[in-house]
Amino acid sequence: MSYERDNIRRMAGYQWGEQPDDPDTIKLNTNENPYPPSPLIGQALASLDPAALRVYPQPTAEPLRRRVADLHDLEAHNIIITNGGDEGLRLAMTTFVDPGQTFAMAEPSYSLYPVLAQIQDARLTKIPLQPDWLPPVDFAETLNAAGARMVCLVNPHAPSGTLMDVERIEHLAHEFNGVVLVDEAYVDFVDPHRGYNLMPLVRDLDNLLILRTFSKGYSLAGLRLGYLAGANPLIEPMLWKTRDSYNINAISQALGLAALEDPSWASSSWARVREGRARLSSGLNQLGFPVTPSEANFLLTKVPNHCPLPANRLQQHLKAQGILVRHFDSPVLSDKLRITVGTDEQNQRLIDVLRETLGAEKDTQ
Amino acid sequence: MSYERDNIRRMAGYQWGEQPDDPDTIKLNTNENPYPPSPLIGQALASLDPAALRVYPQPTAEPLRRRVADLHDLEAHNIIITNGGDEGLRLAMTTFVDPGQTFAMAEPSYSLYPVLAQIQDARLTKIPLQPDWLPPVDFAETLNAAGARMVCLVNPHAPSGTLMDVERIEHLAHEFNGVVLVDEAYVDFVDPHRGYNLMPLVRDLDNLLILRTFSKGYSLAGLRLGYLAGANPLIEPMLWKTRDSYNINAISQALGLAALEDPSWASSSWARVREGRARLSSGLNQLGFPVTPSEANFLLTKVPNHCPLPANRLQQHLKAQGILVRHFDSPVLSDKLRITVGTDEQNQRLIDVLRETLGAEKDTQ
Repeated sequence: MSYERDNIRRMAGYQWGEQPDDPDTIKLNTNENPYPPSPLIGQALASLDPAALRVYPQPTAEPLRRRVADLHDLEAHNIIITNGGDEGLRLAMTTFVDPGQTFAMAEPSYSLYPVLAQIQDARLTKIPLQPDWLPPVDFAETLNAAGARMVCLVNPHAPSGTLMDVERIEHLAHEFNGVVLVDEAYVDFVDPHRGYNLMPLVRDLDNLLILRTFSKGYSLAGLRLGYLAGANPLIEPMLWKTRDSYNINAISQALGLAALEDPSWASSSWARVREGRARLSSGLNQLGFPVTPSEANFLLTKVPNHCPLPANRLQQHLKAQGILVRHFDSPVLSDKLRITVGTDEQNQRLIDVLRETLGAEKDTQ
Repeated sequence: MSYERDNIRRMAGYQWGEQPDDPDTIKLNTNENPYPPSPLIGQALASLDPAALRVYPQPTAEPLRRRVADLHDLEAHNIIITNGGDEGLRLAMTTFVDPGQTFAMAEPSYSLYPVLAQIQDARLTKIPLQPDWLPPVDFAETLNAAGARMVCLVNPHAPSGTLMDVERIEHLAHEFNGVVLVDEAYVDFVDPHRGYNLMPLVRDLDNLLILRTFSKGYSLAGLRLGYLAGANPLIEPMLWKTRDSYNINAISQALGLAALEDPSWASSSWARVREGRARLSSGLNQLGFPVTPSEANFLLTKVPNHCPLPANRLQQHLKAQGILVRHFDSPVLSDKLRITVGTDEQNQRLIDVLRETLGAEKDTQ
């Protein structure tokens, strides 16, 4: 006899990117920051009192919550700290989307969104992005017509890296009847010259949630730390009702604070990733791999016709050479690869292997 | 405009016990272990490589999962590691109880259970325990008549500390049509002479889940680490579908392994708590406070008529003296206090304050 709910039995789970044990693998598949976290993380670890782990952590991670609010010139009541960004997504789904009601997402996008909708037994509406990876102009109308309660957008978009500007998001939030969750997992890598900052909108819009994570920008994917910013009436039910009471352990709270004490370390890694992104993009272009302009820490590239292997087999070939990249088996993505920006050495190794794969001709031109 | 789901808007959240900042407070309110974790925890912390936090943790906490399986003579496929025991409870609710269907619990019990049912928008059936704090003899029939999909029982029971024997749980699981989740948060403090061990049943029963936590037995409440054991068809959907993909961070995985490497440290703290429990029980009895025999790390005591303060005011009075204990405002509990077993010094301080509160007469007899 099976005890699973019907919707759970029918669904498949999220397929995470491969996490190899071999430290020599060049891991350009799950968008981690190639540079280590701030030295203050090590210092914070060393100064932890193991005996203090005996007691429960501060339930709402209050000191970290206040620090994050300060960072964005918001109030603590606008912030909820989450066990990785994924918990923020789940809490929003649990809190704002009834089973049987509609959750909407742009397609393609983060493949966890449909999984969360299935767990919630919500209806799923996928709205195709335009060829420029931006939502169609009638996006809000389409969402309203579908009766969507919430929509999730990654910005910069994954897997393309395309940045949607603040005005379009503000317009969407004004026009849409439900909650707009903007997943800014990769926002730290946006070129500062773009002047992108969505956070001030939190003070004016009652239906906007912004998701951030320490995983990429602060090189702390192993720590599972993220947060949501939004109007207090959106944050409150997640903080006091749907969240597991002690969701953030004492060590994560301390290390999150330490990471935010060293902003120049983090922003220096962002600049290095941007420089690496430009060089990697240029290297790919030189090999005839077209690259979508990216404001994230990854590049989406189309495997060109002159490559002897199609994208899925090229991914396997790279893996055999010790380089992991991501391939998605969907109509608009099946001829492309998503490549995380690594260190200069890792990026160069990727370019070298691609060049060998294409044959020696390109190399000598 | 409110965007919360109706069931979320209607509910109140879980009320956690007070977590004071003042280290001098005698904290006998949230059932923490009064003794520190193993020295191996400090060693494991010191040997962590901060740079390794850059990458995602092992998604299923596989090494810890295998180690926990070994501990209970089970297979890894019988185990899911959770972010505290609370995540295990939530995952079971999400996976096995449909909105609108019935979740059942014994009353009184852990006050998180009704909150999880409300989040899931499930129907809640509360079945009163008998005066001996055990379920009624027709418990399974009542559950089946209510159409319950899952029942949660704490064993040893909270807040009484009463232990239900293995045979009764086995019988219940045989007779009940849904999932039986036995929350063994306090099981490490059961007198070994009782010979209580539910884990072997996991191999034979397809509807039994057993919840454990590192919070109490391993003095790691601050770390948020627990697990569920059960037949693989119960574990699998939680592990691969409803769980957040990277629910256990890299540090917690390492520290959990370290805790299990030092079983004698942990079991020595359990023995000390049992000794302290006996002395505290005896001290309360001497003051005329009747105590329910407890196999947990807390005591439920009835505030006697000769006490000048009723239970709720006595709790406030103790708090003013720097001692936190727990009072529950429900019919069968409102005249009682739940007191965590502390260190000998803490227990003695509690007894002293209670004696002062009662007046000097008892003292001189």
